[in-house]
Order: sequence, then structure tokens, then C-alpha cells
Amino acid sequence: MADPRAVEALKTALRRLPGVGPKSAQRMAFHLLERDRDGAAQIQEAIRLALSGVAHCSVCNNFSETEKCPICASAKRDAARLCVVETPADLEAIEQAGVYQGVYFVLMGRLSPLDNIGPAELGVERLLERVKGGALGEVILATNLTVEGQATADFLLDLLQPSGVRVTRLARGMPMGGELEYMDAGTLNQAFSERREV
Amino acid sequence: MADPRAVEALKTALRRLPGVGPKSAQRMAFHLLERDRDGAAQIQEAIRLALSGVAHCSVCNNFSETEKCPICASAKRDAARLCVVETPADLEAIEQAGVYQGVYFVLMGRLSPLDNIGPAELGVERLLERVKGGALGEVILATNLTVEGQATADFLLDLLQPSGVRVTRLARGMPMGGELEYMDAGTLNQAFSERREV
Repeated sequence: MADPRAVEALKTALRRLPGVGPKSAQRMAFHLLERDRDGAAQIQEAIRLALSGVAHCSVCNNFSETEKCPICASAKRDAARLCVVETPADLEAIEQAGVYQGVYFVLMGRLSPLDNIGPAELGVERLLERVKGGALGEVILATNLTVEGQATADFLLDLLQPSGVRVTRLARGMPMGGELEYMDAGTLNQAFSERREV
Repeated sequence: MADPRAVEALKTALRRLPGVGPKSAQRMAFHLLERDRDGAAQIQEAIRLALSGVAHCSVCNNFSETEKCPICASAKRDAARLCVVETPADLEAIEQAGVYQGVYFVLMGRLSPLDNIGPAELGVERLLERVKGGALGEVILATNLTVEGQATADFLLDLLQPSGVRVTRLARGMPMGGELEYMDAGTLNQAFSERREV
């Protein structure tokens, strides 16, 4: 290795970021040290603050700097409807769309045995307790329509049904702006089999 | 924004890494906070140590934790041959190949007006002083064969020639394992026009 030890250590550390291999890590380390030391300091400080300040909301499990996140603490949200999503990014997409006024439960992942992510990692126990608490009128399973997301939703459905709560899933079909020509067979199949009277 | 401020700040900071857009930054922040807090701490510490410990070798301009880097300080290197490369990664590739026993000058970039990288940023003045020092028998211009790398080599050649030092460039042609079928026209042109008697 011709690089100083501290540069090697930085490259090794950067490889812990998802999607970053040896070449990217080298490019990043060079960039940070040679072109953007301010940026490097900003990243260091942001990680420090996030590690010390960010935990999980005790109610919805989303990232939060307070014991209860702003959404769970808000009196304006409809606490009788609970939307289950995989990640904070999914929650944010729904919030941005402004289509939902209920509350959330964030799994912080999806079932993925290969990555050692099972029911315990997703906080399923806490979700069930909340449902059994009884104040809920509806649970919306809003996991992604990927294989893992659907397996997670199926798994949750089996657990939730005995409680008698109304469980729904997001509608499946053609997305807005979608062109038949470019739609996959699975989506077309769904769009046909769930077609509606007009 | 549904994310806590510290998470937003982390996403913003991670976008200063080259090649990282909003979606990657979100994925990285989620990964660090939810799946790999040890990794996050490792990155934070590695940046801190690199920022405080890594500067430039006073002779070759490469990253170094000491005033003179190990290569420049070594008595085993041939100080009469100087190889000019763009980046530490290029230097490392040459060292790994074990084909060169001389010393280096690392430009830490290439001429790139759009990125505000001119002769001053590349330490060209220091390179010239070293050449004028007189102890050099040969300067090897080993910039990349990209448009910018070649422009940088041409620029340096113009500055170095008056000094009378012998200036060489790396051979151009077919790479080892190269197949004619997949070679670009520029490489084939070079390979033909510089073909050698066998």
C-alpha cells in the first residue's frame, strides 16, 4: 500500500456504506481529502449528531429525536387508522403526497432471512400489541410490491386477522401515466383481474 | 419532511460524497442508523483521523502522514527518474505492478477548467522547480490517456522541454489480453502507426 495508514483506514471505513466498493471508496477518500475537507468535516459532524440524537419513536418505531415523533404526538392525526410501511422513505413518500391523515407503524425493513431480518427485527410484537390495544378501526398494509414486501404483508395479515381488525392493502394496477406498451405482465394481470365497473 | 432534523442533516452531508444523490444518501443514512451504527462510528472516526493526520508529502505531493512520504524518504528508489501521475490511485497501480523503481510527482488531479483545476492547483510550479534542480535524468509523463490527461501531459511537456531534461511518455497501443474485435479506433490507430519491427 502506497497510501498512508489514515487514508487506507478511511477507504476501509467508507466501504461500510451500502453500494460502495473499493473503487468508489478510493474516489470518495481522494475527494474528501483533496477537494472537500469542509464536506468531510460536515459528514463527520452529521454522523456524530445523528448517532447521539436519533433513536426510535416509542409508538411508531420511526426515527425520532424525541420519545414520541411529531406525527404520533400530533392531535390532528386520525389515531384509528394505522398504516404499516417498510421504511422512513416510504412514510415520507406518503406524507409528501398528502393523501393520508392517519398514523403509522414503521417496520424499518422487510422480512429477509438472508439478511437476518425476521419478525423480531421488524418490531412485529409491538405492532401486534398496538392492534390488540383495540382502538384501531383499520390497519393498512403498505409494504412495497416486491417479493419481500409482499411476503411481509402476507405474514402480517396472518397475524392480524385473528384480532378481528379490518386489514386493507393498497390498490394494485396501472400507475398514473402508465403506458400499456411498457407495463409488465404482473401489473397487466392485476389491472385486468381487478378491473372496475365505470 | 417527516424525518428528524439530524437524519436530514446526515442525508445532506452524505450528498457531498462524489456520486451520491438524494436516493443513495437516504439509503446510506437509513443503513448507518438502523443496521450499522458501528460502521457509522468507524466512518466518523476515520474521517476525524484522516483530516487531522493526512497532509501532503513536501517532495512528491502525494498524501502523507509525515513531512516526507516513505517513497521519497527511501534510499532504495532511483531519484534520477521522476514519474508524474494524476492521483494516488495511479501511483498505487504502478507500485502494485512493481515495474518502476524511480520516484514520483503526484499532480492530485488533471487540468480541468470546468472544475477550476488549473496549473496552480496541480502544483506545477513545484514540479518545475524540482526539474530545474537538475538532478533528474528523465521525467516520465504518466497521466491517463483521457482527453484531460493528455491535455495535462501536453501542457507539462511544453513547460519541461526548455529545461533540456529527457521527457518520455508511456507506450500506447493494445493492452495485454486485448482483442482487436473490441478495440476502439483510437487504440487501433495508435497500435498500427507505432507498430514495431520484430
